[in-house]
Parts: sequence; structure tokens; C-alpha cells
Amino acid sequence: MKHYLQFKDLSAEEYAYLFQRADFIKRKFKAVEKYQPFADPDRTLAMIFEKASTRTRVSFEAGMYQMGGSVVHLTTGDSQLGRSEPIEDTARVISRMVDLVMIRTFEQSKIERFAAHSRVPVINGLTNEFHPCQILADLFTWLEYRGRRADGTLDVGALRGITVAWVGDGNNMANTWLQAAQLLGFRLHISTPRGYEVDPAVAGVPRADFWRVFDDPMDACRGADLVTTDVWTSMGYEAENEARKQAFAAWCVTPAMMAQAKPDALFMHCLPAHRGEEVTAEVIDGPQSVVWDEAENRMHVQKALMEYLLLGRL
Amino acid sequence: MKHYLQFKDLSAEEYAYLFQRADFIKRKFKAVEKYQPFADPDRTLAMIFEKASTRTRVSFEAGMYQMGGSVVHLTTGDSQLGRSEPIEDTARVISRMVDLVMIRTFEQSKIERFAAHSRVPVINGLTNEFHPCQILADLFTWLEYRGRRADGTLDVGALRGITVAWVGDGNNMANTWLQAAQLLGFRLHISTPRGYEVDPAVAGVPRADFWRVFDDPMDACRGADLVTTDVWTSMGYEAENEARKQAFAAWCVTPAMMAQAKPDALFMHCLPAHRGEEVTAEVIDGPQSVVWDEAENRMHVQKALMEYLLLGRL
Amino acid sequence: MKHYLQFKDLSAEEYAYLFQRADFIKRKFKAVEKYQPFADPDRTLAMIFEKASTRTRVSFEAGMYQMGGSVVHLTTGDSQLGRSEPIEDTARVISRMVDLVMIRTFEQSKIERFAAHSRVPVINGLTNEFHPCQILADLFTWLEYRGRRADGTLDVGALRGITVAWVGDGNNMANTWLQAAQLLGFRLHISTPRGYEVDPAVAGVPRADFWRVFDDPMDACRGADLVTTDVWTSMGYEAENEARKQAFAAWCVTPAMMAQAKPDALFMHCLPAHRGEEVTAEVIDGPQSVVWDEAENRMHVQKALMEYLLLGRL
Repeated sequence: MKHYLQFKDLSAEEYAYLFQRADFIKRKFKAVEKYQPFADPDRTLAMIFEKASTRTRVSFEAGMYQMGGSVVHLTTGDSQLGRSEPIEDTARVISRMVDLVMIRTFEQSKIERFAAHSRVPVINGLTNEFHPCQILADLFTWLEYRGRRADGTLDVGALRGITVAWVGDGNNMANTWLQAAQLLGFRLHISTPRGYEVDPAVAGVPRADFWRVFDDPMDACRGADLVTTDVWTSMGYEAENEARKQAFAAWCVTPAMMAQAKPDALFMHCLPAHRGEEVTAEVIDGPQSVVWDEAENRMHVQKALMEYLLLGRL
Repeated sequence: MKHYLQFKDLSAEEYAYLFQRADFIKRKFKAVEKYQPFADPDRTLAMIFEKASTRTRVSFEAGMYQMGGSVVHLTTGDSQLGRSEPIEDTARVISRMVDLVMIRTFEQSKIERFAAHSRVPVINGLTNEFHPCQILADLFTWLEYRGRRADGTLDVGALRGITVAWVGDGNNMANTWLQAAQLLGFRLHISTPRGYEVDPAVAGVPRADFWRVFDDPMDACRGADLVTTDVWTSMGYEAENEARKQAFAAWCVTPAMMAQAKPDALFMHCLPAHRGEEVTAEVIDGPQSVVWDEAENRMHVQKALMEYLLLGRL
Repeated sequence: MKHYLQFKDLSAEEYAYLFQRADFIKRKFKAVEKYQPFADPDRTLAMIFEKASTRTRVSFEAGMYQMGGSVVHLTTGDSQLGRSEPIEDTARVISRMVDLVMIRTFEQSKIERFAAHSRVPVINGLTNEFHPCQILADLFTWLEYRGRRADGTLDVGALRGITVAWVGDGNNMANTWLQAAQLLGFRLHISTPRGYEVDPAVAGVPRADFWRVFDDPMDACRGADLVTTDVWTSMGYEAENEARKQAFAAWCVTPAMMAQAKPDALFMHCLPAHRGEEVTAEVIDGPQSVVWDEAENRMHVQKALMEYLLLGRL
């Protein structure tokens, strides 16, 4: 049984498979065709949210229903992990009744402890440390735009050697990009304000050639195939909001910054976006932005992921 | 693609169709027969609630399940429209993942902005200005009791020329009755306390013969085929509760008031009801009251509405 | 139409049937085989929670989905029973739209009033007075371990004459055990701290031989076939937490206490458990404990219960 707690939990070869499946599953959806591998018998996903979410909520829940399965949605009010009972007990009980668990929580250690005592696969729907489902969607979106072979299939090898520029907070997204770059062989340029640096020890990656830190975000974007950023203040850090606004002022993705990247570079953002803060309206609403496809693709890649964790290769 | 944001968004001819479908769908339900046009592929409804609800929640959600579809239920805690991101962005993202959206919110402008950026149909599940699904249920209920032809089908023409008396607040229900009266050709008598008058500019109807304002609710009910009211204090106006109790004291539907209407007049109320305030127990629990059928019919008409918005004429 | 509001609402003969069905339904689940008696047409369960819950929530909801049905989950925020309208009105409306209702609330009188005005079966998912679904699961679990015949079927008669020891609070669990002991013919030993005694008038059982109160929990456990307990402070009594900790100090199920029971006695707990308070880790995590099977069995017995209430004998 496999869990998906960090990006490095799957191999490059498994990612190649997942992208092909996501592509297949997305085509079914777009063709309004039934594809319900979770209907016989009904497979149930428990979703445990300790942080609110629209995108993660809708993408997993709608995706599960489309595949013929069902969802039990637990919020903190229903079940605060580790409060009324040890997380291990909750994992033992819930995993006796459902087929799959998705958790959005604070500390990565919580989801790791849950998974260690679960009878069924556990998916990381965002923690303070990692957000693997988002990077899965981002890479799939890049491949849709830039990695499609003549025969229509996706070529995961097209990622090898490209440059991704991460502009902004050294957060769970940055950590996950580090693992992805190491695993799939692309270069990562990171530029964060002082005091918000990424810590490679969290991702468990070495200081090595495949990633590089830049003081100036303009330098980080130079020659990039993909420029991506996130809100300045992620959930759980709202108290730092004002300090962050000052520190991050130069880390706004502007048309001038995009002009440093390759002419056909794409812009991504995991949303919600604050126009005028981390990105200008010209960029996010402009021709290089693929943020709406990126958001939709959360659903398609997660459907492929759930299918793989539950049913293996088909 | 059609939205259902105001009552006037559909034509008289489309309403005639909807009432026939609701009748068909209700018969299936009563016969405990499967009718699942949303099962292949699974169609998903996202429900966004910024105001709590029992009836709207259960009627849409159970209705969707009965038709073979599924539901993602988002509350304000999950997704406060327009707070963390512009409503337009939320509309773009959610409408990529689901097939239909129902919104219960405050300002009508919110739902209009959402719809303008949605790829899928949007249904008004109540705003400060309108409540079209409720009037849809009310008219269907009236037709069930008073508009059935000898051959068993419903005759929407039976509404033409009848008199509906609205007693109480000049609120979203009153606005919606105005649009319905204009569109389907019945007369509307409105009596509200001073200071709580209906504003025809909201509904966009002219000052014309088909509706008339009465100072005295007894006069409004005279000769009516249907007497209907609502709580004195709708959601969002709780701070005015005491002032409203005084202003509305004479707008309680009593047996004496019902006696002004036709002998076979029906009484309706969209619930929850406060017996002893806007209606006495004798009336709401009496023989002219059809409030429980009216409540149940929310589900049946909404199923017909969803079927029409998603699948068109069948 | 039958409701399940107290344990005594079903007969011994009906329980024998339910245990056989739960066994059948559990086998289907374990074999990953489809069993969906609620799919044609879709049957919908409304769940009304006025007290939060993980186990009750997941067991009913996942169970319903596995059987091909669907669930509308209402929390207090959505619908506070008896606040905005009389409970009777809520019962009338909701029971027009769904097929089955489960309620977790405070006073038993609330659920009794709801059921009296409901058109569909109502299930008690816990009240201050009773928790029949939990005892259903506990007895099924005991039969799985100690009441299986040579031919593999369950022998409800194996319960006749056994001794169950209840150690701790004279709460809704104790009340329900009293009804079960009377109905199914086993002996119940109860030991509670002074001030927390069980009141047989609540359960409606006579002072009779089948149950006996012990001052010392060690005496209560002597010769028992099953030792069971609960948290010291149930939901709704949190203000008494400190006083209860002192009063209940000697009512902790320890290995020494288990040693009073039969050598093959089982230990059960309805969870969540507080190790070091009502039970030690050695006991709950030890070889006599069957608490994880007991938790999982909530789902299987409730599926059998819902099937019986909705479809009768199959």
C-alpha cells in the first residue's frame, strides 16, 4: 500500500504513468463520458480538513463523485486531529471504514503519524511543509502546453532540463518544488525575501546544482520556462501579514519580470491570487497565464492519483 | 447556457414545461421508482451557502442524489465569496470542476457576478432581493390543488387571472411574486407595514394594473385565491427584530383574514413559521394550509429546474 | 414503520435477524463486493448532529454510500433543532424529502418528538439518555468472538446468561446496557462512583435479578465475560471534568481489574479513549481488547439496521 505524503513518495516512472492517466481521465470528463472505476463496489474517500479550502475541497470531492465513489467530509469542528484522542486511534478507526483518506493539516508530522496507523492510503492535501498535489497539477499543466508528443501523448521527459522559477515565500510549495526538481530532473531557481528562505533540510534535498538561490527575483526568472508564485501570507501565518507585505514588495511578478523569462514561458499560481501583491493583473490575466487550467487540473491529476493508490496500474 | 437568477429568467412557456416535468418527477418519487438522468456521467452540483438553511439544503441535495448526481456543499467557513479572492476567480475555478452551481447569499449582485464568469448554470437559492425557487414551488403547489385538468396534467393557464395576496414584508419573496405575476398573468395584492414597502424597481416591474398595494392586509386578502406570508424578520435583519414585531403586529394571518379570501383559498408560507407572529396556529395548521406540500415541492420543482438547465428539454 | 430510538424498540427475534444481516453485510465489505440495496431508487439518509462526532458520522455516512444510498449531513449550524421552528415542523419537512433520518442530540425527548411527526424511520445516533447503535455494535462484536456456531452463523442465544460488567459513569451507555440485558437475557454488573449511579427509571427496567450494582468495580468485574467502560466525562458534561476525575479515580480498568473477569473476557470501549483515565494502555492496547473491531462494527450493524428499517426482511 502506498501513501502520497510528499512528492518524493512516487518515482519518476510512476509520475510518467500518472500524467498519462490524468490525460485519459481529463479527456473522459471533457467528452462528458462516464468513467467510474470506484462504483463497484462504492469506494469512499474521507477528507479531513483542519485548514479551510475551496479548491482542494471541490477538486477531490467532485473528482471522487465523477469516478463513481463517494466522500465523507470532516472539518475541524467534527474531528480535531489529536485533540479528543491520539491521532493514531483516529487513523485506526477511520481507516477501517473508508478506502482512502485525504488530510489537510498543519504539521507534516500529523499526517505521517496518521499514515503510519492507517489501513488505507493517505493523501497529503496540504501541510505546512508540503503540497504535492498542487505540484502534480502544475507539472501536468506544463506538459499539456509544452510536453505533448506528435502522437498526442504526454512526454514527461520534456520536463528534463527546463528551468522553473519560484518567486516569493520559501514555503510548502517551494519545498515541494525542490523534491520535484530533484526527482524529475529540472532546474529550480528560487528567490525569496531575506528571512523567508527555503530550508532544503525540510525537503531533504542536498545543496546541489539542480537548484539555485537568487537574491533578486528578476535574476531568478531569467531564461525560465515557467514562472510561479504564491500568496505572500499562507494560511496559518496571518499574524505576520503586515511584516510580510513590506518584506515581499519586490517579489511581485510583473510584466517586466516575465520579460526576463523565455518568450513562451508560462505563468502559474496555486490560487487564491491577490492581484497587486504577489502578481499584477496584467500577468495573471494575461496570455502567458495558465492558472485556470492549472486549477482545473488539480481535479484531473488527483483523480489519477486516487485511482493509482486504490486500484494500482490499470 | 441558462442561469436561474431571477424569476424572469425563464419564459411563461418554459414554466409550463417545468411544471409538467416537476409533476412527472414527483410521481416517480412517490412511486419509489428510479429516475437518474444525472448518473451517466455523474453530474455534480456545488452548493455555496453564505446563509444557513435547512429546506434549501435538503431539497437541493436530496433531489440531486435522487437524480443520480452528487453534491459538494460549501459553507461560508469553507468559502466566503469575495473575501480571499474576487468572486469572478471563484466562479472560474469552481465552474471548471462541477456541472451546476447553487448559491444562497446576501446581495443579488454577488450571484450575478458569479454567473457572469461561470462556465456552468447558476441557480439562485435565495438572495436579499429574490427567491425564485420558492415561488416556483408555490405556483406548482397551487396548480396541483387548483390547476389540474381532467386528464391529470397541470394547466399553467389556470394561474391567469387569479389573485395572490402577499401579507407582510416587502422582501425578496414580494419582489419575486411581482416578477411572477407579470410573467404568468395573475394579480398580486400586496400589503406591508409602512416602512417595509416593496420597491418595484428591484423587481424591474412597472407600476401597472396587475399589482396593487393595500394599507390594510384585510383588504389585500379580499377575494384572493391564495394568501401567503413570511416571517417578519428575514435572515440578515435580526437586529431589527423588536422594531419589526411592533410594526408588523397587524400583519398576522388570522382566520378572520382568511375569511376575506375566497372560501377555497389556499394558505402558503415558505417556512420556518412563527405561530402567533406572522400567522396563527389555526391558519397554518388548518384545512386551507398547504405548507407541507409546498415545502416538499421545493425538491420536486428544483429537480425539474436542474434537469432543464443541465439537459434541456427531454 | 419502525423507529430505533431506544434499544427496546426491537425484539430479541429482530436482533437475531439484525446480527445475521450485519454478518452478511460485513462479509460483502471484506470481500470488496458490491452490495447496494439502496441504489434503485437512491435512498437518502439525513443526519442531524447537534453534538460533534467522528465515529457516528463516518460509520453512518460511509455505510450509506456503500449500500448505494446517499447522505445529507446537517450540523447545528445548519439546523438547530427547535430553535428557528418547532421540532415537529422540521420533522414534517425533512421527512418529506428523505428516506431515513439519524439524529444525535441532547434530550431524548427531542428525538421522540421528531419521530412522532416523521414520515420516515428515525434512528438514535446518541442522546443524553441512550446510545442503542453502540450496544448493537458491542453485542455483534461479542458474538463474532464468542458466539459463532460450527456452521459459521452467529448464535444470538450465546448471549443468554453471560455477564457484562459496566465500569464507570451511569450514563446513556449504562442505560442502554440495562435495556439490552433485560431484552436479550444476560446479566449486567454495574459499578459507578457515588453520585453517578444509573437510574433504572430512565431505561424503564425493574429492579430485578438480571442486573446488580457493585460499590467496588473489582467486584463488578468478577467472573465477567465482557468488561466495558466509557470516558469519565461525556459530551455535554465538560464543566464537571475536574470533579469527575477525582470521583472516578478508582474506576480505571487496569490489568488487575481485568484479572477479576473470566480468563477469556473481552474488553470494549466506545471510544474516544483516554489512556490513563478510564482505562490503562495495557488493557486497551492488550490482547483482550477488541475496540477496533468494535468501532468498525458500528458501520456494519448500522448498515443492517438501516436496511431493516427501510426495506424490512430480505
